[in-house]
Amino acid sequence: MRIAFQGERGAYSEAAAIAHFGEGIEPVPCATFDEVFAGVEGGAIERGVIPIENSLAGSIHRNYDLLLRHTLHIVGEKIFRVRHCLIARPGASIGDVRIVTSHPQALAQCEHYVARLGAAIEPAYDTAGAVKLLKGSGRRDTAAIASRRAADVYGMEILAEGIEDDEANFTRFLVISREPLPADSASAAPSKTSVVFSLRNSPGALFKALSVFALRDLDLTKIESRPIPGKTWDYSFYLDFVGNTAEPVTARAIEHLREIATMLRVLGSYPRDLGIDP
Amino acid sequence: MRIAFQGERGAYSEAAAIAHFGEGIEPVPCATFDEVFAGVEGGAIERGVIPIENSLAGSIHRNYDLLLRHTLHIVGEKIFRVRHCLIARPGASIGDVRIVTSHPQALAQCEHYVARLGAAIEPAYDTAGAVKLLKGSGRRDTAAIASRRAADVYGMEILAEGIEDDEANFTRFLVISREPLPADSASAAPSKTSVVFSLRNSPGALFKALSVFALRDLDLTKIESRPIPGKTWDYSFYLDFVGNTAEPVTARAIEHLREIATMLRVLGSYPRDLGIDP
Repeated sequence: MRIAFQGERGAYSEAAAIAHFGEGIEPVPCATFDEVFAGVEGGAIERGVIPIENSLAGSIHRNYDLLLRHTLHIVGEKIFRVRHCLIARPGASIGDVRIVTSHPQALAQCEHYVARLGAAIEPAYDTAGAVKLLKGSGRRDTAAIASRRAADVYGMEILAEGIEDDEANFTRFLVISREPLPADSASAAPSKTSVVFSLRNSPGALFKALSVFALRDLDLTKIESRPIPGKTWDYSFYLDFVGNTAEPVTARAIEHLREIATMLRVLGSYPRDLGIDP
Repeated sequence: MRIAFQGERGAYSEAAAIAHFGEGIEPVPCATFDEVFAGVEGGAIERGVIPIENSLAGSIHRNYDLLLRHTLHIVGEKIFRVRHCLIARPGASIGDVRIVTSHPQALAQCEHYVARLGAAIEPAYDTAGAVKLLKGSGRRDTAAIASRRAADVYGMEILAEGIEDDEANFTRFLVISREPLPADSASAAPSKTSVVFSLRNSPGALFKALSVFALRDLDLTKIESRPIPGKTWDYSFYLDFVGNTAEPVTARAIEHLREIATMLRVLGSYPRDLGIDP
């Protein structure tokens, strides 16, 4: 199965895709999230794996926007522990490191470690991309922050592992597909459903929308508001809740929400990853 | 009055501070948002101006987290139109530009313009910082994307203005202070109040919390959920609504919310910026 992800080979998204699907997949690196969506939508690639939320940094807004712009379905989720590694050319040692390069978010998540090293920082577009560039450059005074997988892919050396300041660093990835999961695959495991909707801008509008779930004891796991492009300060709401549209109570909640919302799309029902998210 | 902001001189935050307070202020550039908060909290600086939300990119999560970690008060808001300029050394022309440098978000917001130029992109930590570096480097083949103010501060030339792909590009800034606004300053103008709270993780918890506002016809203008550090996938909620704690109905809503929330802080009541946000 071909699985698209954003970033260079060795990106955290690739590591999450392999953790979810196993080693047998064919990972397809894409330059942008847009390419991941377009590749899956066009049918050339079976699935995409996109990060949607990090426990420290919050939501990846771009992907919420792309879920709305495209008509793909969420068919799975994977909660993946982010363990940053300090990666250098073979033979380099920690004492050689004067510059640390990575994506600004990874640099921020290892701020204390890098400060203790006394190294300068150099922003890059991508964690794994920083490793690839470093390999090409031949620089011995520079190390990159990226995944263990990135070190493997580029034949580089791990000088230190688990260098993030906060260990509670998890990213939730979504699996996207052209077709939704068949409804009968639902009942076996606990499911989540993701929806996106907009509301008239009136007092109590969000309260009414949430009543749809509260009145049926459906548990929300996440709510996110996003500006609607072209309508400054109007918002769409992205909402995850425990349930599957194949179950009558969930289907009725969706129908009820349709009465209230000015726009509503069901993004998918999929097995809940209980690995970390209790 | 001394006003702290994050970034180099000429940053959009500085431009917003001057738009809000007038030219008479003394802007104090800070390397990080943490320094802005620490400077105001320590008493050395009277006010801080921090971006909290952009109409295209969404919320600036770091500042939500810092509002919770510190005990400052929100005393104002400013909604500021972001108009990106292409800035180069005096005498340069658009035809010379081979490389465009700026903060990754500004580069993303001018993606189509830069693609039409056929220029390569080079990420930097800061929009105004990119102008400062460019001035120091003497490079003639490079232009930076930043505010008109940044060009003025560093004596550089504006090659093009309003180069953002989407004109509906507004940033909402908050003004933070050690002391809240006096309660009697409230009644003259329409106010907003910002609160942050957490809830027991139980079905219907958010619904009950929002009932506090819906039952009193108090209009929500923004809701944002943030992971709670150390409690993976537990969330704090940040909420803005129309009202002032000096008004009885607002004060009662807050007391009601206190019955439901496991944690609640009022971040401030302040005059609403009606410039753009209707």
